[in-house]
Amino acid sequence: MVGAVSPLDLSALPLVDAHCHAITTAPLDDAAFALWCTEADDPAPEGVSYLDGQLGWALRRWCAPVLDLPSHAPVAEYLRRRRRLGADEAAARLLRAANLSALLVDTGPVLGGLADHAVLGTLAGAPTRWVIRLELLAEQIAPGCDAAGFAPAFATALREALPGAVAVKSIAAYRHGLHLDPARPQPHEVTAAAARWQRDGGRLADPVLLRHLLWTAVDAGLPIQLHTGWGDRDQPLARADPALLQPFCEATLGAGVPLVLLHCYPFHRQAGWLAQVYPHVYADVGLTVTHLGGRAAAVLGEFLELAPFGKLLYSSDAIGLPELYLVGAAQFRHGLGRVLGALVADGAVTAADAVQAAERIGAGNAARLYHLS
Amino acid sequence: MVGAVSPLDLSALPLVDAHCHAITTAPLDDAAFALWCTEADDPAPEGVSYLDGQLGWALRRWCAPVLDLPSHAPVAEYLRRRRRLGADEAAARLLRAANLSALLVDTGPVLGGLADHAVLGTLAGAPTRWVIRLELLAEQIAPGCDAAGFAPAFATALREALPGAVAVKSIAAYRHGLHLDPARPQPHEVTAAAARWQRDGGRLADPVLLRHLLWTAVDAGLPIQLHTGWGDRDQPLARADPALLQPFCEATLGAGVPLVLLHCYPFHRQAGWLAQVYPHVYADVGLTVTHLGGRAAAVLGEFLELAPFGKLLYSSDAIGLPELYLVGAAQFRHGLGRVLGALVADGAVTAADAVQAAERIGAGNAARLYHLS
Amino acid sequence: MVGAVSPLDLSALPLVDAHCHAITTAPLDDAAFALWCTEADDPAPEGVSYLDGQLGWALRRWCAPVLDLPSHAPVAEYLRRRRRLGADEAAARLLRAANLSALLVDTGPVLGGLADHAVLGTLAGAPTRWVIRLELLAEQIAPGCDAAGFAPAFATALREALPGAVAVKSIAAYRHGLHLDPARPQPHEVTAAAARWQRDGGRLADPVLLRHLLWTAVDAGLPIQLHTGWGDRDQPLARADPALLQPFCEATLGAGVPLVLLHCYPFHRQAGWLAQVYPHVYADVGLTVTHLGGRAAAVLGEFLELAPFGKLLYSSDAIGLPELYLVGAAQFRHGLGRVLGALVADGAVTAADAVQAAERIGAGNAARLYHLS
Repeated sequence: MVGAVSPLDLSALPLVDAHCHAITTAPLDDAAFALWCTEADDPAPEGVSYLDGQLGWALRRWCAPVLDLPSHAPVAEYLRRRRRLGADEAAARLLRAANLSALLVDTGPVLGGLADHAVLGTLAGAPTRWVIRLELLAEQIAPGCDAAGFAPAFATALREALPGAVAVKSIAAYRHGLHLDPARPQPHEVTAAAARWQRDGGRLADPVLLRHLLWTAVDAGLPIQLHTGWGDRDQPLARADPALLQPFCEATLGAGVPLVLLHCYPFHRQAGWLAQVYPHVYADVGLTVTHLGGRAAAVLGEFLELAPFGKLLYSSDAIGLPELYLVGAAQFRHGLGRVLGALVADGAVTAADAVQAAERIGAGNAARLYHLS
Repeated sequence: MVGAVSPLDLSALPLVDAHCHAITTAPLDDAAFALWCTEADDPAPEGVSYLDGQLGWALRRWCAPVLDLPSHAPVAEYLRRRRRLGADEAAARLLRAANLSALLVDTGPVLGGLADHAVLGTLAGAPTRWVIRLELLAEQIAPGCDAAGFAPAFATALREALPGAVAVKSIAAYRHGLHLDPARPQPHEVTAAAARWQRDGGRLADPVLLRHLLWTAVDAGLPIQLHTGWGDRDQPLARADPALLQPFCEATLGAGVPLVLLHCYPFHRQAGWLAQVYPHVYADVGLTVTHLGGRAAAVLGEFLELAPFGKLLYSSDAIGLPELYLVGAAQFRHGLGRVLGALVADGAVTAADAVQAAERIGAGNAARLYHLS
Repeated sequence: MVGAVSPLDLSALPLVDAHCHAITTAPLDDAAFALWCTEADDPAPEGVSYLDGQLGWALRRWCAPVLDLPSHAPVAEYLRRRRRLGADEAAARLLRAANLSALLVDTGPVLGGLADHAVLGTLAGAPTRWVIRLELLAEQIAPGCDAAGFAPAFATALREALPGAVAVKSIAAYRHGLHLDPARPQPHEVTAAAARWQRDGGRLADPVLLRHLLWTAVDAGLPIQLHTGWGDRDQPLARADPALLQPFCEATLGAGVPLVLLHCYPFHRQAGWLAQVYPHVYADVGLTVTHLGGRAAAVLGEFLELAPFGKLLYSSDAIGLPELYLVGAAQFRHGLGRVLGALVADGAVTAADAVQAAERIGAGNAARLYHLS
C-alpha cells in the first residue's frame, strides 16, 4: 500500500526570481487588472473571464490572505480590498510575502504605467540585477547611427550596459522565430540588414540582425536568456519550440556562454532534452509555473525528467501586478514540494536528496550561473 | 499530510454533447463492433485487439451495467448480451444513460449503416441541433453548377442550411492540413480552383476552396468547429497541430465568429494557449476524452491549464456505436470530478468554485456559444 | 473517497528487453561512469552532475542494494563499492537482478570498450538475439563494392546476417531525419547515391541510401525498429518526431512488415496514435523509461493512451553500464505497477485484466512480434 503522500515543506525555500519585469503601482480598474492576468491583449468575450482559470484561482489562494482576506475570497472582494489598502501597500505586502533572495529584472518591455525598476527591489526587500533585452537596446541606439555604424554602436552600448547586469535576453522568438540560421552573420550582411531596417522602419525583426545581436552577446560573455514557448499572440507558437534552437546550441557549444531557455511550455520536454545533451543549456520554468496555478506540480514533474537538476531554474516572469511575483513563488514552492514529496513517498529518492535538488533549482543554480554573490 | 483525495461527484452534471455524429442501430458482428472503437480502418493484426486498450476498458466499465451485466464483463459476454437485447433496445438504454441535455450533430460523414439523425435525438431523449459540415455541403452542390457558379451556389446552400444549425464544421485538417494561407481567396482564384476540381474530380481538397468555405462560413456568422489533432489515418497528424491555425485565428480576430478547436490531442496544450490569447477561440475535449478511458482525467488536467474555463467545451465526437455517447459522457463526468477533486484537496480551489467551472465546461459554455435555449 | 492506491506488484513480471546494446566490463573512473548515464557527449559544466537527476536517483535506488549497499547510497560510495567488487562481479549481479527472459541486442554502435555481445547473454543468464543495424551493415560492405554493386552487395549481406536476427534497426532519424520521401528509390537513384557517397566518404547519411536500406529491409521481412524521439545531440530532435514517419507507415501498410517505433519521447503520444491507426506499427518505451526514473510511471501512463495494449513493448535501450539493464527493468516493472494500480483503484479496470495487459507489454507482445520461442 502506498500511504497518503506528504508533500515536502518548501515554504521557506530560498528563491531567486531569475527572470521578471517591472511592476505597476498605478491604481487599476477591474478590466485592467484582469488583462495583467493573461497573455491576451483583448478583453474577454461575454461570459468569459480571464480570472476564471488556473491563474485566477491561484491568485485568490495565495494573495487574498496577504491582504487580510480569507483564501479564495471572490475576485470582486479581493479587488475592493486591494483598492482600500492602496496599490502601494498591496504591492509592498505581496512582494514581501514572495520572500525572494534576489530578482533579475528584464529591462523590457517598455510599457506605460510600469514603475521604475528600482521600486521593485525596494518593495521586495531584495537586491535586483538587470537582464539586458538585446532587441530593446538595439532599437534605442539605432536612430543614432548609420547602417555601417550599427554593429560597433551596438557592441559599445552592450559593453556599457554590462555593469550591473547578470544576463542578456533575446526575444528572437517573437520577432522572427527560433528557426534562425545559427551562423554568425558577416559584417557586410549586418550592414546591409541595418540599412534595410533603417529604410523600412518598424521594430527590429530582421533575422540577420537578430542573429547579430545574439552573437554580439556571445562575445560579451554573459548568460543569454531566450524566450521560448508560449507568450502573447504577437509570436507564432509553432516557431517558438526550443528544439528549433538546436543548431544555435550546437554553434555555441564551445563558446563558454550559457543559454537559458525561458518558459518552454508546451515544449518543456524538448527543453529538458537540450539541457541534458548540451553542457551550456539550461531551462527556466518562469511564466509557466506562475500561470498554471494548481497544475504547476504536474508541469514541474515534466520539467524534472531529462534535465539534470543542476540545469533547472526558477523564475516568475512576473510583470505589472505585484500579485504575480507572489503567485509564482508560492506556487513554485508548493508545487515542487508536491512533486518531490510524491517521489519520496514512492521511494524514488530520499527526502534529504530531494530538498537538496529543490535548493539548487530554487536558488543555487541561479547563484552559480548568474554569479550572484 | 495530504489525505486521500475525494473526487467531486459530477455524476449528474448537465452535459451538452457539442459535437457528435449519427449512430448505427444495425446489428453488428464482433469485428464490425471493434472497428467502431478505433480510428483504425483495417482489422487488427493477429494477437492484437482494438478493444484491448483504454476505450475497451472504459466501454466495459460504463456500458456493461446498463445492459444488466457486471461492470467489466468480458467483451464477448457484452456482445452476446447486446445481441440478445437487440440493437434498438441497447441503443435506447445506452443513450438514455448518457443523460444529455442536447446533442449537436455533425451532418457528416455520410457512411453506410448510419441511422437518420433524428433517431439519435429520439433515443437520447434530448434535443438535437445540426452542425453543417462545410466540405460535404460543397461536394453536394458542386455537380449542379459550373466553376463560376460554385461560390454563389455554395453561399446559397449554406444560407439555406442555417435554420436548425448551430455551427459549421471544417475538416480542412484532413483534406489539406491546417497550414493554410489565412487570407480570404479572391473570387477569380475560387473560380479557377473550382474549375480544376470539376476537371480532376475527387473529393474537395484544394486549399483555395477549403479557405473559401471557411471564409463563407465566417460571413454566415455561426461558430466554426475545426477538426484539429488526431483522427483516422486519412489525415497527416503533423499537419493537424492547431498552432498551425494561428494565422487564421489572427485573420478572423475581429470577425465576431467563434472558432472551436475540436479534439486537439496531442496538441491540446497548444489549443489551450490559442484559447487564452484569442478572444474568439475555444477548445473542445471531444474524441480525446471518449477514447482515453481511465487516462481522461490526466488529459483533462492538461486541458485545464492555459484556457480560461469559459473557453472549454465537452463533446463525445461519438459516431456509430451508442456506447460511445455514454462512454464519453460518463468518463468526462468521472474524470473531471477527479481532476477538480484533486485541486480541491490540494487547496487550489474551493469545491463550490470547482463545481461552477464544471458546469460551465459541461453545458454552460456550449449553451452560450451555440445559443441553445 | 478514493483510498490509498495500491500499486500492482509486477516485481516478477517476465520481461523481454526488446532493444539494447553491448555492455562494457572495463573498469570505469567516475567521469566515464557518469557519461554512460546521459545522452550528453561532453563533461558536465562546473556545479552540474549528470548523476544528479532522475537516472542517478533511480540508479542509486535499484542498483545499490544489489551491490550490498542501502538503497540510495551516495554515488561516491556506490562507485567505491563497485570497484571493490570488480566490474565483472558487479555486471553479473546487476544483469541477473534484471531478471530478463531474453535480450534483443542491436549490433551497433561499435564503440571502444564494449564487450563482445555474447558476454551480455552469459552474464544475464538469458538468451540473446540480434537486431541488425542497417546503416552499420551498409558501411561495412561499402568499401568492397563499386556504386552499381552496392545494392546487390547490401541485399546479400543482409540476407546472410538474418539467421540469428529477429529484427533490423534504422537510425535514419540520426543520419537525416524522419521526413524521408517514403517511396522505394529506383535502382539508378541508388547507384548514383552510392557513387556520391563513395566519392565524398563519411558515414552513410544520404536520404536515398537510407530509404534503400529501409526498403531492402521490408523485402527481408523482419520487423523494423526505428529510432524516433530523443537520443544524443548528434540528431536534430525536431526531425525525430515519429509523426514524420506517417508517409512511410502508409507506404508499407500492406507489406506485412511490422514497424517498431523506439524511444518516442517527447513525441510518444504521436507514436501511440500511429500504433492505433496503422495495423503494422508498434511503440517501444525503451530509453525513455530507463532514463526517467521516478517519472517513468507518469510517462508510461501517456504511452497507455491511444495505443492498443497489444502494440506496446518494453525495452531498456541500455548500453555500456550493466546498471542500465537493471534500472530499465526495475523501473518499468515498478512504474507500470503504479500506473495500472491507479487505474484499478479508480475502477477503470480489474486487477486481472491489468495484469494481463502488463504481461503482454512486458513480454507477450515481443514474443509474438519477434517470433521468440
